Amino acid sequence: MSTQTARKPEDNRRNGLDVGELAQTVEAIKHDKDLARFEFRVRNRWIGGLVNRSEIQGFYGAGAEDRSRAEPFTYLSGEPPILFGNNEAAGAGEFLLHALAACVTSTTVMHATARGIRIESISTELRGDVDLRGLLNLDPSVPAGYRQITVDVDIKADCSDAELDELLQFVHGHSPITSTITRPVPVTIRRVA
Amino acid sequence: MSTQTARKPEDNRRNGLDVGELAQTVEAIKHDKDLARFEFRVRNRWIGGLVNRSEIQGFYGAGAEDRSRAEPFTYLSGEPPILFGNNEAAGAGEFLLHALAACVTSTTVMHATARGIRIESISTELRGDVDLRGLLNLDPSVPAGYRQITVDVDIKADCSDAELDELLQFVHGHSPITSTITRPVPVTIRRVA
Repeated sequence: MSTQTARKPEDNRRNGLDVGELAQTVEAIKHDKDLARFEFRVRNRWIGGLVNRSEIQGFYGAGAEDRSRAEPFTYLSGEPPILFGNNEAAGAGEFLLHALAACVTSTTVMHATARGIRIESISTELRGDVDLRGLLNLDPSVPAGYRQITVDVDIKADCSDAELDELLQFVHGHSPITSTITRPVPVTIRRVA
Repeated sequence: MSTQTARKPEDNRRNGLDVGELAQTVEAIKHDKDLARFEFRVRNRWIGGLVNRSEIQGFYGAGAEDRSRAEPFTYLSGEPPILFGNNEAAGAGEFLLHALAACVTSTTVMHATARGIRIESISTELRGDVDLRGLLNLDPSVPAGYRQITVDVDIKADCSDAELDELLQFVHGHSPITSTITRPVPVTIRRVA
């Protein structure tokens, strides 16, 4: 993680990232693995119907509470009319795809930068299939969640197609959101007074 | 899904949802399971560094392409300074928690409504642990994604605590995003020309 805030114009930047800063972070974590522990957090409140709002501000990471955000980010979630809403915002299933798209793209940029690859553009299109009989409890054999998700990546960079294919295969194994979706991750839901 | 757009004031509404509409949807899907098939989609474009933007508009569901959104929803994703960004927006890991919070809350509201429970309030707090050595490829035994996620639910409603506990247990098994995270779901990442 970054240990500098001021960036000098002569810094060695690639793809909008500081190459030296990335390398320093890797070295720092090699010497103290506790710096790699992060806890992300969201607070959410029901507004009515299928509309709710999240606030996102603090997190723990690199051995300390982060204080860099003076105000929380706020995001609504809603549903389209066919799913009992009024398009107040994207729905939960779409926000999961947004998280996956962001993570695949950022993981690609980070590891391309570390490999010396300069990226010209990345566009992704994601599709996820779900059968609402799971949510509605109409068939116990139908899972409630996505059955599969496809990420089509259109990437242009100063390297060969074979290097890009290898990079994307590496990203599949190292993107945190891809890993969260493809592995079984325990979720505890508990009522608090 | 809804088959009506105009809502009459005498409709039987509970928790902001139309009870009759919910029941009709369940009956319609019982007679034609293809109505339950949905495909959600996101298009994302890299802006620079770890900043990218998603557009969310169309989807397939209830046997047809949805056309209810005249404009796409757009959401940025960014990272805090300690993770090489400038707090342009929440990060991918936080958007995944937002998706989970929204889904747990909406699934709770839907099934409470179907059970005749009137909800007064729902607030949730989510926390997810991740070890960035996975993302940074520093230890092959460390998964890149979340290790576990906890959802604390503060819910007030016109029923007993035991009924709320049973409802939340049901939600754990039927929330699409909880199901996507707790099961291994295949994600395909492929390069397109």
